[in-house]
Amino acid sequence: MMQEKKFVYEFGAHTDGNAKMRELLGGKGANLAEMANIGLPVPPGFTITTEVCAAFAAGGGKLPDAVNRQKNEALKRVEEQVGRRFGDGKEPLLFSVRSGARESMPGMMDTILNLGLNDVSVQGLANVTRNPRFAYDSYRRFIQMYGDVVMEVHAKDEHSVDPFEEILVAAKKSAGVQFDNQLSAEQLQGIIVGYKELIRAATGRNFPQDVGEQLLGAIGAVFRSWNNERAILYRQKYGIPGEWGTAVNVQSMVFGNMGSDSATGVAFTRDPASGENIFYGEYLIDAQGEDVVAGIRTPNPIAALEKDMPDVYGELVAVRQKLENHFRDMQDFEFTVQQNKLYMLQTRNGKRTGFAAVRIALEMERDGLIDKKTAIARIPADSISSLLVPIFNGEDKKRVKLIARGLPAGPGAASGKVCFSAKKAEEVHGRGEKALLCRAETSPEDIRGMLVSEGILTSRGGVSSHAALVARQMGKVCIVGAAALEIDYASHSMRVGGLTIGEGEELSIDGTAGEVFLGSVATVPSEVNQVLEGTLAAGKSSIYTMYAKLMSWCDECRKLKVYLNADSPKQALAGLRYGGEGIGLTRTEHMFFEGNRIDFMREMILAESAEERELAVAKLLPFQREDFIGIFKALKGLPATIRLLDPPLHEFVPHDEDTQRALAKKLSIPFERVRARVGALREFNPMLGHRGCRLGISYPEVSRMQARAIFEAVVQCKKQGVATHPEIMIPLVGFVKELRHQVTIVHEVAAAVKEESGVDFDYLVGTMIELPRACLRAGEIAEIAQFCSFGSNDLTQTTLGMSRDDMGSFLGHYNGLEIFSQNPFATIDREGVGELMAMAVERAQRTRKEIVLGICGEHGGDPVSVKFCHSIGLTYVSCSPNRVPVAKLAAAQAALEQEAAKSK
Amino acid sequence: MMQEKKFVYEFGAHTDGNAKMRELLGGKGANLAEMANIGLPVPPGFTITTEVCAAFAAGGGKLPDAVNRQKNEALKRVEEQVGRRFGDGKEPLLFSVRSGARESMPGMMDTILNLGLNDVSVQGLANVTRNPRFAYDSYRRFIQMYGDVVMEVHAKDEHSVDPFEEILVAAKKSAGVQFDNQLSAEQLQGIIVGYKELIRAATGRNFPQDVGEQLLGAIGAVFRSWNNERAILYRQKYGIPGEWGTAVNVQSMVFGNMGSDSATGVAFTRDPASGENIFYGEYLIDAQGEDVVAGIRTPNPIAALEKDMPDVYGELVAVRQKLENHFRDMQDFEFTVQQNKLYMLQTRNGKRTGFAAVRIALEMERDGLIDKKTAIARIPADSISSLLVPIFNGEDKKRVKLIARGLPAGPGAASGKVCFSAKKAEEVHGRGEKALLCRAETSPEDIRGMLVSEGILTSRGGVSSHAALVARQMGKVCIVGAAALEIDYASHSMRVGGLTIGEGEELSIDGTAGEVFLGSVATVPSEVNQVLEGTLAAGKSSIYTMYAKLMSWCDECRKLKVYLNADSPKQALAGLRYGGEGIGLTRTEHMFFEGNRIDFMREMILAESAEERELAVAKLLPFQREDFIGIFKALKGLPATIRLLDPPLHEFVPHDEDTQRALAKKLSIPFERVRARVGALREFNPMLGHRGCRLGISYPEVSRMQARAIFEAVVQCKKQGVATHPEIMIPLVGFVKELRHQVTIVHEVAAAVKEESGVDFDYLVGTMIELPRACLRAGEIAEIAQFCSFGSNDLTQTTLGMSRDDMGSFLGHYNGLEIFSQNPFATIDREGVGELMAMAVERAQRTRKEIVLGICGEHGGDPVSVKFCHSIGLTYVSCSPNRVPVAKLAAAQAALEQEAAKSK
Repeated sequence: MMQEKKFVYEFGAHTDGNAKMRELLGGKGANLAEMANIGLPVPPGFTITTEVCAAFAAGGGKLPDAVNRQKNEALKRVEEQVGRRFGDGKEPLLFSVRSGARESMPGMMDTILNLGLNDVSVQGLANVTRNPRFAYDSYRRFIQMYGDVVMEVHAKDEHSVDPFEEILVAAKKSAGVQFDNQLSAEQLQGIIVGYKELIRAATGRNFPQDVGEQLLGAIGAVFRSWNNERAILYRQKYGIPGEWGTAVNVQSMVFGNMGSDSATGVAFTRDPASGENIFYGEYLIDAQGEDVVAGIRTPNPIAALEKDMPDVYGELVAVRQKLENHFRDMQDFEFTVQQNKLYMLQTRNGKRTGFAAVRIALEMERDGLIDKKTAIARIPADSISSLLVPIFNGEDKKRVKLIARGLPAGPGAASGKVCFSAKKAEEVHGRGEKALLCRAETSPEDIRGMLVSEGILTSRGGVSSHAALVARQMGKVCIVGAAALEIDYASHSMRVGGLTIGEGEELSIDGTAGEVFLGSVATVPSEVNQVLEGTLAAGKSSIYTMYAKLMSWCDECRKLKVYLNADSPKQALAGLRYGGEGIGLTRTEHMFFEGNRIDFMREMILAESAEERELAVAKLLPFQREDFIGIFKALKGLPATIRLLDPPLHEFVPHDEDTQRALAKKLSIPFERVRARVGALREFNPMLGHRGCRLGISYPEVSRMQARAIFEAVVQCKKQGVATHPEIMIPLVGFVKELRHQVTIVHEVAAAVKEESGVDFDYLVGTMIELPRACLRAGEIAEIAQFCSFGSNDLTQTTLGMSRDDMGSFLGHYNGLEIFSQNPFATIDREGVGELMAMAVERAQRTRKEIVLGICGEHGGDPVSVKFCHSIGLTYVSCSPNRVPVAKLAAAQAALEQEAAKSK
Repeated sequence: MMQEKKFVYEFGAHTDGNAKMRELLGGKGANLAEMANIGLPVPPGFTITTEVCAAFAAGGGKLPDAVNRQKNEALKRVEEQVGRRFGDGKEPLLFSVRSGARESMPGMMDTILNLGLNDVSVQGLANVTRNPRFAYDSYRRFIQMYGDVVMEVHAKDEHSVDPFEEILVAAKKSAGVQFDNQLSAEQLQGIIVGYKELIRAATGRNFPQDVGEQLLGAIGAVFRSWNNERAILYRQKYGIPGEWGTAVNVQSMVFGNMGSDSATGVAFTRDPASGENIFYGEYLIDAQGEDVVAGIRTPNPIAALEKDMPDVYGELVAVRQKLENHFRDMQDFEFTVQQNKLYMLQTRNGKRTGFAAVRIALEMERDGLIDKKTAIARIPADSISSLLVPIFNGEDKKRVKLIARGLPAGPGAASGKVCFSAKKAEEVHGRGEKALLCRAETSPEDIRGMLVSEGILTSRGGVSSHAALVARQMGKVCIVGAAALEIDYASHSMRVGGLTIGEGEELSIDGTAGEVFLGSVATVPSEVNQVLEGTLAAGKSSIYTMYAKLMSWCDECRKLKVYLNADSPKQALAGLRYGGEGIGLTRTEHMFFEGNRIDFMREMILAESAEERELAVAKLLPFQREDFIGIFKALKGLPATIRLLDPPLHEFVPHDEDTQRALAKKLSIPFERVRARVGALREFNPMLGHRGCRLGISYPEVSRMQARAIFEAVVQCKKQGVATHPEIMIPLVGFVKELRHQVTIVHEVAAAVKEESGVDFDYLVGTMIELPRACLRAGEIAEIAQFCSFGSNDLTQTTLGMSRDDMGSFLGHYNGLEIFSQNPFATIDREGVGELMAMAVERAQRTRKEIVLGICGEHGGDPVSVKFCHSIGLTYVSCSPNRVPVAKLAAAQAALEQEAAKSK
């Protein structure tokens, strides 16, 4: 007989899984198994695998029979271990039902607690705990959660109050109490009756008394929540494929809300905001876990537990050590103390700010917990940017008023207009202004508003509150629990220390120090930049020390060179300070807009013959030559890849009549000629029109002038003893004959300049690969091109047939439907564009083994794309100057990943 | 010792080559060898291979040493055979030097005759022929030709007279004679002195007396002429690669101008204009071959030779028979009679009109000269169109005045404005009007003007004149030698039978009958169409009989199905009459423009919510349903491929303020809303914007309505007993999720319509492949798509990154530089787009072996592209109705070519 596939994995006294099985069990399930394996106190339970998630959706929301059977068997064994029965009237076993995906997606999916309570078992619970108030409170919480999550009884809209809350508040009012835990068992029973009526009225069905039905309903709700709007949005931001699915963890309940000898908490083995190596966390006495995360009650810092429960605290300190030593990474764990007994409910690698990621990795390496390669691999490449962002100017900080302090939950400096709702933040952002989201607490509904805000500030909640958590994940500047703020949503204002601050007023927050300022504070460059620019001594900045150490490690590992996209000496210098190794893209046309050069450019465009055009072009020559001399001097012999004129000419001409008339007068030509020419330049699809090398072919005198400017600059530099390494790049080639035409011009001009000047020099000529046809013909192109650089922006536009400028009108729908797994203009579309690139690389190398291949589209600064570029064997990536450190780190990671894969 | 590569092939008493060596020897060289092999009288000579053409250009215009050596050896052997020596002062051997490419390019490249004459050898020629006048005339002609072709002494510009002609005309005037052959030997010697002075003055060099130098110069000029502007233009039109190159034929001269016992002529083994099986041709007594072709003297019809030279005529009739029996194709040959002895100078497969191509192939098959497959293969697929073009209305012809008759050189009917110069024709055409080029004779300089004219009419020249020849090749309506016309270029008018006709007046020519009419004549459908439409009995039209026979042969052979692009029942019926086998593309949006539907469409576009949109869309539903019912009824159960809405919405809205205001009023909405919405629809690159399935995804109600209209039409047809075969096609898919989204809608609607109507029906859902990404992801797409159709227009635009609408601004330069081997929007760019298509086919078939694959871009009606589609294994091509016969013929040829290749 064939063995049935395993869909349900147990943990507890008997454990099937381990930490390596994340894909199948999700992160939470795998780590529950692992904790059980290493002897930590885990309440027993079981995990339904991620594979079931897709099967559940495909089956129209029904669990496959085999899964149901295995679930029932596992449940029986939990009953045996705990010694209680599910739905029992005397000693009922209760469960929590939680999601758990391969990657943690905190707060995005649904959870049900206290499952297994009904009108009968609640009495059993009351008896066995001798605490009827606790039992009915649990039942009340369960019905509320189940009604919301499974039976979908919600507030009508965002302006209405949650209907369960409404009943609760009314009950408290009629009982004359302030807090939930002041309600008596009888009062709670009254609430339960109200809840049940609410559910029947809203859904036409009764709240289910059958615990089996409860469990199936909860499992289904968790699986369904994988595809709720929040979860989809989150996946898009973090590039998590919808195909992965979530697992469901069914675990026997323990209670932190059984009195003052019970507690629940969340802790980190290090500070997730600053990365500091301290025990960090918070807890609430007599509470359930959701209370901590939801941020409704402000929890106590973990250190206070030493006094409240000294034994438990001691146990926790040991657990902290055991976890870090076992997992060798910063852990974020949840615990519950039920009547003085500690239970571990979850552990996972803790989310951390970019800053903390760098610090923790470097310090763990220093302390021998991990090796250098692991340290590099563990830092999300984007994180390093957080060492480079501007910080508040210390002097200017003194000028403004410090109005509050809170917990620093996301380092950095942010200023913006106060917004008291996510919607307002979106509105302010939509107007192109900076928003600072300011809430008592945040919840998953606020996520869009958080995304667009410069910073997040809350008056309640601790470092494990939703706001802190999301800030860590998104790299937002954030302060939580700034208790001095009294926010009044109704009046769209807040009071703090006698001040009233209205919506739209300017605030500043220092997420590193946890300080809130009234008004806007000036910024200065990051410490790293201050050191690089020579205004701060390297020894004075520990941040610079971290930066420099990490960069030197990256330089040891990486194979990819990192070049810059830079159009001016200033930009080039900025990138060179970060260790850029040359210029991968200089857009010569940007130079045409400066000063009165634009007039010569326009004169060229308006010329009626090649001779006239040549005269106009000649006037541009000295300017271009000076530009190139500047760039060569900045580069000191590093490669300078210079792209010839690319954009359509209509970008250079004025489109309004007044400027056209002025231009006509200036050039002493009839206005009608200007207007007619501008009209003739209009194109249906300029992206696919008369641009790139098509310009150089129609107007060879332009290519000739640009080549001459480059070579004359080379000669002048050579005479001044400045080394040069020019690489001339022909844009938008699709046919090899286009390239041959332009390359011939370049070689002719080079020969002429050598002849005239008597100076010999080296140079390369190559092309951009930015059309699908160029990818296909790369073999042929490489016969002529000495180097090729992927223009991945245009290549993406043509391969997808999608104009980046026009996609706004349908992007919203596309995101909602998860049509792109990632935005193809941010991260290379590996399955489409990526295949063409790989094909081009292979064909080009077959023709010319040692050809230099690079990328100069915006993808060159995106870590995922950088790794892809490494994998297909490019020589370099070129990116904007401030992305150089990110690209270097990603390049190092790519090399290490490849090395690891090879050694397998 | 290694054998040196052979660059020079001899023909004559010893012959190295044969007819199969076209690629190496060119058509002329290969056939000279073949004629020598079968015993026809060929003056001895040698051929320098096409391989040398590229070597010559690469070597900077110098013959490689090995070639030069082989040439000298071959020359020596010709001297031995003929018994004369090259450059000899007593019995000089003279040569002709002619081009000869793989495909004949008549009149496009240069030729030199009488080479080997100099001041000394001319005296030898005079002695040995005892005809000093002849000798000096030959020398005069040689210097003129050499001066023009090799030494590049030309008229200053198109308005100036040729400087050699100027000297000649002046000499005739001073001698008081009218014709060249009335000049005495002494007068000719005077002209020769004038010519030499002209050359020295114009070039600073002497006309070369060294015959070796003469020969090298001529060979070089012929090789160079491969790349003159005319030749490049010609190659572009006929898709001949520049890489092929030309061979050079050096042949000992014979003279048709040695008196009244000498002659020169051109003949065809059948009539190249009508295809009739008669001996056809013309000759001139006492003339050189160039005189016939140049059309300067109007030659005599070949039949007259029976009286002039009965023996030679008998020999020629035998040669005609021998050539047709040997080559089994209509031959076009040149002969010279030197003092009553016949020499064959050239034979080749005769160019013929499309009409003649069909007739000759069918008649040769009937007579057992060739088999059916050869007959099919031999008809250029486009030719069949000439059986389908409208003809003059017989009644209307009687209304207008018949003003002249000429030789019918290109069948068909053409009307247009008289243009007396090619330039004028281009100008008239440029204005969007029809031009009729009317010249005394045409020359290669006129080729651009001929290309754009509706028809060509000459007053001089015979059927082998330049005009007749080009008309045959281009498929132009043409009459030559309409001697009654007296054209006066100076006054831009012509006189004929007492009338004066000015430039710009309307004329009509019937190229089948050879009749010229004053004014415009109405046309009626071709005989084929008259039969198909039932207005003419099949038995009454021999043309229809040919058409039907050929089509039935094609249907036997071809593997590709031929579908129609048709948006209305009327278009569908037109294509079905030609044997279309279904619809490959119905553009549903075209239906939205009819009547007041556009208002509903605009209402839909202006809707502010999905609900409003749904209301507007519902109004379109009944119209769409009726459209589809009409199409299904026309198709009677053949496949109907219906594409959902594709173009960007801005194509449906008014862009001028008045219409916008009217629309606002009609829809009772504010004008500002209309204006704002129209503004919002504007896109930077609409080709790459919000269109195709992106619309259906943003506005699913539109897809839903279209699917419903289709299925409701299916149900209604079914109820009326009309079979249907709907195939719904989703446009512009790049991501498989896009397709899945739209397919889901279609299936949902189908299920709903089945449910509502209680009628079951079949349908398919598929997609267009029109983006590079779709080609790459075809394997995945085929998991969902039941069929795929290549949208080769958009696929070409995206693969090449080139907008068809915008390429006008650089196309001229691109053509001049031969950057495209063929216009990629007319013929599939095999190396780029073609590779993507082949890749898509392979991937789609790997997923779904039996998937139906087609093409519905405009390439579907282009013969070369049809063959490509066959080669990659498509199921069908879809083209506009009137291209169906062409596509069928091309499909049959493709199948036969594949069969032939397999049997090899």
